[in-house]
Amino acid sequence: MSEELSEILEKAEQAIAKRDHSRVRDLCWDLHHADLAELFEDADQEGRTFLTEALGAEKFSEVLAELPDTLVEETLNSFAPEEQREILDSLPDDDRVDILQDVSDSKRRDFLELLDEDKQEDTRTLLRYDEETAGGRMTTHIGKIREHMTVKDAIEHLRGDLESTMTLARIFVVNDEDKLVGKIRLRDLAFNAWDVSVQSLVQDIDHSILATADQEEAAQMISRYDMLILPVVDESNRLLGVITADDAFEILEEESTEDIEKGAGIAGDQSEQTYLNTSVASHFRRRCGWLVILAFLAILSGFVMMRFEHTLTEVYLLSLFLPMVVAAGGNTGGQASTMVIRAMALGELDPEDTTKVAWKEFRLGLLLGSLLAVLIGFFAVFAPPALQFTLPNGTNFTQFGFTVAIALGAQVATSTLIGALLPIGARAIKMDPAVIAAPAITTIVDVSGMVIYFTVARSILGV
Amino acid sequence: MSEELSEILEKAEQAIAKRDHSRVRDLCWDLHHADLAELFEDADQEGRTFLTEALGAEKFSEVLAELPDTLVEETLNSFAPEEQREILDSLPDDDRVDILQDVSDSKRRDFLELLDEDKQEDTRTLLRYDEETAGGRMTTHIGKIREHMTVKDAIEHLRGDLESTMTLARIFVVNDEDKLVGKIRLRDLAFNAWDVSVQSLVQDIDHSILATADQEEAAQMISRYDMLILPVVDESNRLLGVITADDAFEILEEESTEDIEKGAGIAGDQSEQTYLNTSVASHFRRRCGWLVILAFLAILSGFVMMRFEHTLTEVYLLSLFLPMVVAAGGNTGGQASTMVIRAMALGELDPEDTTKVAWKEFRLGLLLGSLLAVLIGFFAVFAPPALQFTLPNGTNFTQFGFTVAIALGAQVATSTLIGALLPIGARAIKMDPAVIAAPAITTIVDVSGMVIYFTVARSILGV
Repeated sequence: MSEELSEILEKAEQAIAKRDHSRVRDLCWDLHHADLAELFEDADQEGRTFLTEALGAEKFSEVLAELPDTLVEETLNSFAPEEQREILDSLPDDDRVDILQDVSDSKRRDFLELLDEDKQEDTRTLLRYDEETAGGRMTTHIGKIREHMTVKDAIEHLRGDLESTMTLARIFVVNDEDKLVGKIRLRDLAFNAWDVSVQSLVQDIDHSILATADQEEAAQMISRYDMLILPVVDESNRLLGVITADDAFEILEEESTEDIEKGAGIAGDQSEQTYLNTSVASHFRRRCGWLVILAFLAILSGFVMMRFEHTLTEVYLLSLFLPMVVAAGGNTGGQASTMVIRAMALGELDPEDTTKVAWKEFRLGLLLGSLLAVLIGFFAVFAPPALQFTLPNGTNFTQFGFTVAIALGAQVATSTLIGALLPIGARAIKMDPAVIAAPAITTIVDVSGMVIYFTVARSILGV
Repeated sequence: MSEELSEILEKAEQAIAKRDHSRVRDLCWDLHHADLAELFEDADQEGRTFLTEALGAEKFSEVLAELPDTLVEETLNSFAPEEQREILDSLPDDDRVDILQDVSDSKRRDFLELLDEDKQEDTRTLLRYDEETAGGRMTTHIGKIREHMTVKDAIEHLRGDLESTMTLARIFVVNDEDKLVGKIRLRDLAFNAWDVSVQSLVQDIDHSILATADQEEAAQMISRYDMLILPVVDESNRLLGVITADDAFEILEEESTEDIEKGAGIAGDQSEQTYLNTSVASHFRRRCGWLVILAFLAILSGFVMMRFEHTLTEVYLLSLFLPMVVAAGGNTGGQASTMVIRAMALGELDPEDTTKVAWKEFRLGLLLGSLLAVLIGFFAVFAPPALQFTLPNGTNFTQFGFTVAIALGAQVATSTLIGALLPIGARAIKMDPAVIAAPAITTIVDVSGMVIYFTVARSILGV
């Protein structure tokens, strides 16, 4: 955010706190609705009411579309029915649908009835698509012309719809059955003679998406193919609407956040709310699940530790490196799974790449394991005597260093492979790799670390 | 990726393997360059050479721009100088600059000299900007008209540049000193009378960015304000070029990947290469650093464990819950830091929000800690007797359950707060939160977990 903008937002916050009506209007009138939404979210309950009153319903309609789900209904309710009508009426149809998807069923009916019949009909059609699909995200206000028109017809037709059309960066050409025939660039209309036929200017459509497809697929297509606008069609290839690049930004940001949160054992769909605006109760609900499960699973490591208590008591010094061997597995497994999960999310890994991944991570595990084994092995041979740690009779520091090194190397090599293959396995059985990988790896690697460490210690040190 | 596309790519792979020249051309000719780049990357050395030959230099130029840095130079070298000239000449200037930024200095000179003088000059100017800045990413081929033109002049001027202009979704208006005056929509030119002055149609520019600003700032602006095109200016507000939405997708994807990787202790800038195309050596370099540091830091936990060995030996059963108490801190600290780091990355948290974050996480820590304490406390009272574990004389299972519960609750509450505040602290001292938080939290929380557990055990159980 630019300094200038931060300054304006800060001043506006103060003006809201002072309930300075005219200053709030002065400061806020030219702000982008994304900035206004931030200001609104950061205000307290009364500040919000004040801000909506200061700005008025029409100005506020754009802000509403930027608010998180949970704030939409109460904010819309705070307006009088006539203002609600004004707000809903002035929004582009995809934003209106977004908002209506966020409110309760009975409210949705009420709000819909505020609209004129045409808009009600259009909105109801869009509401049939699930919120997470391409159809649920699309706008129907697009530049659309028929293949038999001339440039002059096309320009006149578009001129009529000009105000309600979101973008003319792409104009789509359909046949008499509304089926998508191709696209045309506004420049080709603008810079051609009026009697040229549209058909002679039409270009092929390389990519379109079914209305029922997942919104993430649509966003990835837009990003992959450097598109500004992706046409949305039904099964018969009839043009229903478009998804634009700005929708794709929103979708991809939500998905990235969701992946990051899943990796940390945070449950549930990523809410559209900011961190600070999410209630403690809602944070609690999203975080407690995995914490409880992982806590009980961690008792497994405790069992292993108790089982080998004797070994630990015999060679006290083993305690010094126990947490390290266990943690090194968690770290290297975590790195491997992070890279593989991200590669899968970016569509880089097909199921048939499994052996390639395994071979790569196997070599990496050996390299990383060897490096750590050598470094920590040396440390284990030379540091403890210098620090005046002692070993029981019958063992020496060279043996001890070997024990630590071999256990560490084995643990790192195993964990790397586990970390890489678990997400792939999860996907193969149709589970979400990001959700399942982190907890499973932690548990497996903690237990395996203890088992490896104590088993190696027993066989090398003979305890 | 659609099934149809996967199928074509698979067939193309087979045709490449069979060196079937005409079939490769048939299958590949209509593919998008993003798909061709994937095909190229997945092929082996000879397959790549074959594919470039089959497609020819001109077709291949677009593919080159999609390739990861490390592949660019060797691929370009595989062409004859005349073909190199053809490739570089046919690329849009931002892609050409991207490619030249990826090759060695001497090669860059050679390649530049293949271009005609005008293009050399333009390219040299762009090469002056750092690769990671707005200037380094922009294209200079934009629709640009002067404020004193009429609609007719403007259309004629644009018509002349039509082929080299990337997009006409926004046309920018400058004054005689090339300073940015405003923007105009192609539709306003196309649908207005020819003698209307450009000045009467010009709209204000809400957002522009300095060429020296970070590319991430540009991408976030485009995403936040739903822009298709962001004008790039110099200190005197002279229009230098634009950054488009497709650049923003690329930048934001790179940044998300970088954040995710940093969180797992993976070092270095995110490379543009796919997971599979990154060599084992390069994976090794990026991962080994934190692994070694964390391994040595984990010895600190070992020290604490040795220090309290006596307590552990006295009450064997403490081992059963030790890994759990330590791990619960790591998990809850990890969740808190993940949420805070992501919120900072999305620009939701200002430095003055620190107390709000602390207050929220403090309450969350208490709630999560209490929940876990109650559940695991009950388990610790009732499960061990049922499993025939014993306690030394002088202690009973109720006391033991209390010990575990209080230690766990304290550990979770502390770790949550540490996890939330560490990233904020890192940012305050100008360190990258994503890089520093994960390792620091792991180390602190592991040590604190052991200290808390054994201290509580000593005071409650009196050992």
